[in-house]
Amino acid sequence: MSDLLEEELGTWRRSHYSVDIDPSLNEIQVIIMGWVSSIRDHGNIKFIMVNDRFGHIQVALKKKDSSSILLEKVEKLREHSSIAVKGKIRSEAKAPNSAEIVPLELKILSLAKKSSPFQMQSRKPAGIDTRMDLRALDLRRSLLQSIFNIRYTVLSSCRDFLKEEGFIEVNTPKIIATATEGGATLFPIFYYDREAFMAQSPQLYKEQLTMAFENVFEIAPIFRAEPSRTNRHLSEAISIDVEKAFVDYNDIMGLLEKMIVYVIKKINENNKTHLKFLGSALPQVTVPFPRYRYTELIELMQKAGESVSWGDDLAFQKLQRLEDLNAKTFYFVTDWPTAIKPFYVKPSNDQPKECESFDLMFKSLEISSGSTRIRRKEELIERMEKQGLKVGAFDYHLKVFDYGIPPHAGFGIGLERLIMSICNLENIRDATLYPRDIDRLTP
Amino acid sequence: MSDLLEEELGTWRRSHYSVDIDPSLNEIQVIIMGWVSSIRDHGNIKFIMVNDRFGHIQVALKKKDSSSILLEKVEKLREHSSIAVKGKIRSEAKAPNSAEIVPLELKILSLAKKSSPFQMQSRKPAGIDTRMDLRALDLRRSLLQSIFNIRYTVLSSCRDFLKEEGFIEVNTPKIIATATEGGATLFPIFYYDREAFMAQSPQLYKEQLTMAFENVFEIAPIFRAEPSRTNRHLSEAISIDVEKAFVDYNDIMGLLEKMIVYVIKKINENNKTHLKFLGSALPQVTVPFPRYRYTELIELMQKAGESVSWGDDLAFQKLQRLEDLNAKTFYFVTDWPTAIKPFYVKPSNDQPKECESFDLMFKSLEISSGSTRIRRKEELIERMEKQGLKVGAFDYHLKVFDYGIPPHAGFGIGLERLIMSICNLENIRDATLYPRDIDRLTP
Repeated sequence: MSDLLEEELGTWRRSHYSVDIDPSLNEIQVIIMGWVSSIRDHGNIKFIMVNDRFGHIQVALKKKDSSSILLEKVEKLREHSSIAVKGKIRSEAKAPNSAEIVPLELKILSLAKKSSPFQMQSRKPAGIDTRMDLRALDLRRSLLQSIFNIRYTVLSSCRDFLKEEGFIEVNTPKIIATATEGGATLFPIFYYDREAFMAQSPQLYKEQLTMAFENVFEIAPIFRAEPSRTNRHLSEAISIDVEKAFVDYNDIMGLLEKMIVYVIKKINENNKTHLKFLGSALPQVTVPFPRYRYTELIELMQKAGESVSWGDDLAFQKLQRLEDLNAKTFYFVTDWPTAIKPFYVKPSNDQPKECESFDLMFKSLEISSGSTRIRRKEELIERMEKQGLKVGAFDYHLKVFDYGIPPHAGFGIGLERLIMSICNLENIRDATLYPRDIDRLTP
Repeated sequence: MSDLLEEELGTWRRSHYSVDIDPSLNEIQVIIMGWVSSIRDHGNIKFIMVNDRFGHIQVALKKKDSSSILLEKVEKLREHSSIAVKGKIRSEAKAPNSAEIVPLELKILSLAKKSSPFQMQSRKPAGIDTRMDLRALDLRRSLLQSIFNIRYTVLSSCRDFLKEEGFIEVNTPKIIATATEGGATLFPIFYYDREAFMAQSPQLYKEQLTMAFENVFEIAPIFRAEPSRTNRHLSEAISIDVEKAFVDYNDIMGLLEKMIVYVIKKINENNKTHLKFLGSALPQVTVPFPRYRYTELIELMQKAGESVSWGDDLAFQKLQRLEDLNAKTFYFVTDWPTAIKPFYVKPSNDQPKECESFDLMFKSLEISSGSTRIRRKEELIERMEKQGLKVGAFDYHLKVFDYGIPPHAGFGIGLERLIMSICNLENIRDATLYPRDIDRLTP
């Protein structure tokens, strides 16, 4: 019954990308397409609000001027249905955009069969699971539209920045034979008749590739079997991985902070409308970012009464209690204990208990790690053995170190955590379209 | 012993990104860094060729003008070692780039311990497995440098094109609960305590996302358990996936051919030096690409004496024998039998045995598939059942179809196959950095 009303596109195509119509186009005939966000009946006139990804426009349907077929179709409409409207633009001071569409014809392209189980206008319309179960619908909300448009600016401006800095984009395998940093958090795969794993990082590959391409980056998924249920961990995330030849960790910190400043500038330029919906300003950033040595931070924490010792990892909860740090936005923690960093991180020459490493923090959240890497095979093997890794399993990697791999350094930054920081999100799940965690595998 | 000669970067940094030095910079002091591609001893003078990702420059070391420490270091050098040279530029007509470096100081940053097992200058230096085992070294070859720089242009120009066309880049999960197109070619994963799979396509997600973002694209790995050993299949590949709301497959063919033309134009503009090493010109392209209906092609093949029937898939080997087709570069095959296309492909309204679908071919190689998609839930369910899929397993997907999903169409294009076509490669393995297939899981 209702199906009979659904029509094909046929020869109809949109006149414009957007419903965001200039009122000076008064009397121009257009075809708009989008989804219905509200229907209001004022007796002699009906208002249908049509949304597309740029905004919304009101379709004003006067009963006395409309054909019975048009009225019958509108009668069947329900919020979220996709429609096409052929009509004339009328500049109308009282309309939301100072313009509205007077419809001549209407096609129902796809009829919504149910009502949305959550409020689309609300900032917190429902529990996260309710929203996730109908994620594609949830994503029509203005707040999420804003977040994911900003996310696209982050992705594309990182790429532009790295291109300008002389990097080449690479893709490394996500199916790997051995764990990069120990096997605890890996997902195993049946790879034909063998066991393999999903890559938790492109680390070893990007290091190798500095031999051939010097400056490489990859933006790709990483996979971690995180057993914890928190608002800042995902089982599948996007990592922006950068590796550069002939530099050390200080150069890389300079590159990373420059990239963050570039990205925030681009969001301010390109996402003005989206920023309005966020409800909070972007972090203010200038280079250089503050730098704390790890040792210095441990002392600060001890003074603040936290029970921490040199050599401990910096716990999120403990950092959260340091008011000074949480008043900052981005800062670096440098020169970590060698023992708690991965095997490929280069120990300092004068003080090998410390290593040439950094974490980029946003308040108490770690969003990136980087370091100078070890380039001598014997030193790598020694560090692997100390960390209890099976050296033989890394043969395929170690053998290229016989052929003059250049000195190199790099970082990996978690895209979703960067988005959380920039957009002031509480839950990392809203920085990704379809989150994966210990409890969720669909949609 | 040799290790003692390896030095740290210290305060040294490159003066330029490239060794591709302008001879007019005569007498300017620079620091260059790169890998040694040859050492020639002419008695009183030694020539060291230093390569970086832009080219190479000759370092000319006169024995009588050089310190003993400099001479001693050069004595230890071996091809592929990474070095840094501080010296003066001298314009020199006989040098390869009309300029050379007169060294003042030299640092061996990383000493090659072994000689390369294959020839770096040769176009076919060794069997593919020998090269793959030392892939990072293999990638220093000029031919591969060219391919992967062109590949980067393909990636970045696709992204630029799609941005200009009003698309947003998305990332969809690679860990999924159910097969998209039947379960035959999936890699299973242990996902915590459940079974999951690696995504063979972002198909269902990109379709869903047209609800919220209308025009979406994703460039990401896809995973297929291909049991075949051929030169055109990989177990892990990069797919450029595009999906657009409010259009049909004809619009999408127009978009795809426009993208290919854009990409080839950009390679011609940006990769002049790299194109020289390819040894073959880029395919000439103009829009529209030729279009053959599937039915028409079957008739052509039958006339050519091939034993094919309407309803068969088009076999690579049989297509290869059609001289007319193989004289072309890119062309479309349209309106395929519904029965051999996936469940989400929309049957034609007038002739439901055919569907609104296309493959983009390059000679006899399929490089892309696209179609108008079904947007009615009942129709999707019917098609799933016909193809023997478990409808219940797609619940998470089907339920968003209750909320007014717009008409949509799209395509997926295999990046490596596109690179093969553009660069005239025989083996798809050279279009990817670290290939994965039934036999190869490392490096």
